[in-house]
Amino acid sequence: MTLKQLHTLSQHSDVYKDSRRLAVIDLGSNSFRLIVVEYVPGLSFRVVDEVAESVRLSEGMGEENILRAAAMNRAAKVVQIYGAFCRATGIDDIIAVGTSAIRDARNQAAFLTRLESESGIRVRVLSGEEEAYYGYLGAVNSTALDDGFVLDMGGGSLQISRVENRRLREKISFPLGAVRVLERFLKSDPATSDEVDDLREHLDDVFGNLTWFRYKPGRKLVFVGGGVRMVGRLAQKQDHYAVDLMHGYQLTLAQAKAVRKLLADKSVAERRRIPGMKPERADISLGTAVVVHEALRASGFEELTISAQGVRGGLFYERFLAGDGEPLFVDVRLASVLNLAHLYRFQEKHAEHITHLTLAMYDQLPAAVHHCREGERDLLWAASMLHDIGVAIDYNDHHKHGAYLILNDGLPGYSHREIALIALLVRYHRKGEPKLDEFAPLMQMHDERRLVQLAALLRLAEQLDRSRDGVVQDIRLTTGRDYAQLELVTRGDGQVALWSVERHRDVFQQAFGLQLEVVVSA
Amino acid sequence: MTLKQLHTLSQHSDVYKDSRRLAVIDLGSNSFRLIVVEYVPGLSFRVVDEVAESVRLSEGMGEENILRAAAMNRAAKVVQIYGAFCRATGIDDIIAVGTSAIRDARNQAAFLTRLESESGIRVRVLSGEEEAYYGYLGAVNSTALDDGFVLDMGGGSLQISRVENRRLREKISFPLGAVRVLERFLKSDPATSDEVDDLREHLDDVFGNLTWFRYKPGRKLVFVGGGVRMVGRLAQKQDHYAVDLMHGYQLTLAQAKAVRKLLADKSVAERRRIPGMKPERADISLGTAVVVHEALRASGFEELTISAQGVRGGLFYERFLAGDGEPLFVDVRLASVLNLAHLYRFQEKHAEHITHLTLAMYDQLPAAVHHCREGERDLLWAASMLHDIGVAIDYNDHHKHGAYLILNDGLPGYSHREIALIALLVRYHRKGEPKLDEFAPLMQMHDERRLVQLAALLRLAEQLDRSRDGVVQDIRLTTGRDYAQLELVTRGDGQVALWSVERHRDVFQQAFGLQLEVVVSA
Repeated sequence: MTLKQLHTLSQHSDVYKDSRRLAVIDLGSNSFRLIVVEYVPGLSFRVVDEVAESVRLSEGMGEENILRAAAMNRAAKVVQIYGAFCRATGIDDIIAVGTSAIRDARNQAAFLTRLESESGIRVRVLSGEEEAYYGYLGAVNSTALDDGFVLDMGGGSLQISRVENRRLREKISFPLGAVRVLERFLKSDPATSDEVDDLREHLDDVFGNLTWFRYKPGRKLVFVGGGVRMVGRLAQKQDHYAVDLMHGYQLTLAQAKAVRKLLADKSVAERRRIPGMKPERADISLGTAVVVHEALRASGFEELTISAQGVRGGLFYERFLAGDGEPLFVDVRLASVLNLAHLYRFQEKHAEHITHLTLAMYDQLPAAVHHCREGERDLLWAASMLHDIGVAIDYNDHHKHGAYLILNDGLPGYSHREIALIALLVRYHRKGEPKLDEFAPLMQMHDERRLVQLAALLRLAEQLDRSRDGVVQDIRLTTGRDYAQLELVTRGDGQVALWSVERHRDVFQQAFGLQLEVVVSA
Repeated sequence: MTLKQLHTLSQHSDVYKDSRRLAVIDLGSNSFRLIVVEYVPGLSFRVVDEVAESVRLSEGMGEENILRAAAMNRAAKVVQIYGAFCRATGIDDIIAVGTSAIRDARNQAAFLTRLESESGIRVRVLSGEEEAYYGYLGAVNSTALDDGFVLDMGGGSLQISRVENRRLREKISFPLGAVRVLERFLKSDPATSDEVDDLREHLDDVFGNLTWFRYKPGRKLVFVGGGVRMVGRLAQKQDHYAVDLMHGYQLTLAQAKAVRKLLADKSVAERRRIPGMKPERADISLGTAVVVHEALRASGFEELTISAQGVRGGLFYERFLAGDGEPLFVDVRLASVLNLAHLYRFQEKHAEHITHLTLAMYDQLPAAVHHCREGERDLLWAASMLHDIGVAIDYNDHHKHGAYLILNDGLPGYSHREIALIALLVRYHRKGEPKLDEFAPLMQMHDERRLVQLAALLRLAEQLDRSRDGVVQDIRLTTGRDYAQLELVTRGDGQVALWSVERHRDVFQQAFGLQLEVVVSA
């Protein structure tokens, strides 16, 4: 962050003043996770610390649903550490929840009493429906899901929710978490094909009876949980995926099947050696892959979208968006862009002015000169708002830094292809010849041309406000058969703008094949 | 920057409150450059804006030293733009200097009057000696130069300064800038071998008579200017250099010769197509390469170090370090690390505590377990101070972000190898198996082992302060034949530290081949 920005900041730092920290602890059947989120209610948030431990709490619970001593001791130790961690780091706002294993345990009460006495942390036990609700809340606030389903697979249970107009319509929970599936169906190592078949048949019955869980045009399937992220990681490794992002990754039916086959017949020891496999998940990985694949197959979806934000996210959003009505972002993509902009203290006035100029040019260009419009305007808007956030790292190469920040954040709600395009627009908003570079594998037809044309508009706009004082208030763009005329409506001395734009006229000409004239209006 | 840091910041933001902006404008014989530096006097600084225009002011001056009308018109236009830029961005603190071309021009007075009346900018004309002084000041405050020489080659003149104990002892200026050399010696395109020979003979005389300009053990040669950066860029392209840094790049005699040969016999049009060549420098590039090579050859140096900070840097440092005594950093490396740390608002207390713990372990390890000590401690210090700056980008992967920030900044005063090692130590301070990765080509014998051992110490220290509350006040490290015992001197509850360090014992064991015991002292 530059000192200049610090000044901008100090001018409206009251906005950022009300900063809070919340610890969300999720005591799952397989792993215990602690995240610390720092947030300004309704404005911006980010994870500032995270600890995860593989505990295997549900190990050996069996049909009689008794938490075993060894598992409880492992769990108590970790919760005690989490409590000490929160005290040491001065976090007193803690939400701790227990899911399937604790929920179903007949010796739950004694265990919770022990946890609280040893760690000082009071654990709220979520019902299956509550767990489904929070999983839905995390998923719907971090993806473009309007209609469809949220599946949340943990160590103990699998939640399935139906979403309509972003509202939760149906929810149900099954004891089909990864550890349960392992212990109930896949007892051998390596698992026998009979064991796998029994599991698949069982899943077929479960999903078959769930008549509302079916694909229809317009419906999306969002999948949540550490298990599906592991499946996604293996698929990305196999395909040498172009970006280092898991949230928002689209996993196809074919990929899910391929991962299942990759794991089948292998012993746990062999699976540990697969690139991308986390050792502590090797034993439960096959069961997870089978459930993911069967869920897609049975519901008739061709692909699912992975969300990294499940129950923990939902619990946070309930707090972050507290107020009237349901804790839902009005627009997830808008929220993602503004959150990133605020995290890097963007120069709001300049960003919004650039956005105005860029979109004004875009809207005034006749469709004839660029045919591939759908979805474009939103990408151009996002890139314009974020074009300068790289200055938070360094003015030099801030176009590269901005792209780095966007690719690192991942802009929840946008597809990886869209994120890459936004990053590339920022990457080329000052210099360089726009290219798809390593992201070509993610792209669609016309995307190279789309990038070149949109980048040209953003670069012109940036030149028009080179002095960052809004001297060019507005523009008018008219086009002829082989030329375009850009008329600048200025207040005061527009010579810096004129001089700057002159130096970049060629990018417009190359992008649209039109000679560009620039005139200052009387 | 996280909100958490914003809080840290707000606690001592008075430190950063006194932020100022200075524009330094350098009217050279070839190019005019404007940089805007934002700084807190004596604490931190960074370039926040930069504009460069190729003007060729000295074009056609000839022996009679008259600035030509066309050149003056180009120059006046650019200076007028720079003035408008400063007004528009609200910068009223402007230092504008003219060098060789303006200094030598017989029509200087009229030209300066015109510039001031058209742009509002009063230009200070630097004498050859002043130009040499500011070039020296920029170089000595941005490199590890103690004894040796600073050469500053611009479009019009070449300054040579002798430095002893970081003080300027001799300085002289010659009319051997890139444009002058082109017009006086290399008139043909492509230049004939006779023309090149005449230039080389002339340089041989000049350097030959300069008896104090000679290599001696312990002396370094630092070269400044856009010309030598271009030579460095071509050399880096030829060698597919591993890092994207120019400041601090070490160019060998052999490389300088190779670049000279690469350019010789080629027409200007052909040179433009050489990878890394800036089109506007193609015509003056050969003369520059010849001067750079001859300077090395004549003085008997085997290599030179490129500094990106010349006269502009010197003018800034004179302001930034104003006070008693000469405007010199006490220690350039120290200043670079602290500047970077402050720019990203490091958590000072945590960083200094980690540094204390890391160096305590390092100092208590018997030399027997790691033989390659020279220079190590300083790298470990820098990495410890900077280990968390990546949090300014994002907590997730902040080890990677920190390495990115360090490699982007370049830490003036450290060699590229040292910068890469510091970045790698930060890269591996939390997870991953330390590897030299793409930086292997820069490294020396034992550097892989050096990285593995130092990273292990930094990682242990980070675990000891995992809760960031300094609970582990100090450590004692004792070693036996096949084990090491780490004794933790704690205040209060050390269980988070113990638990965290347990999870990373293996990296120490792998690095030093010693079983690690961790005990909490009574």
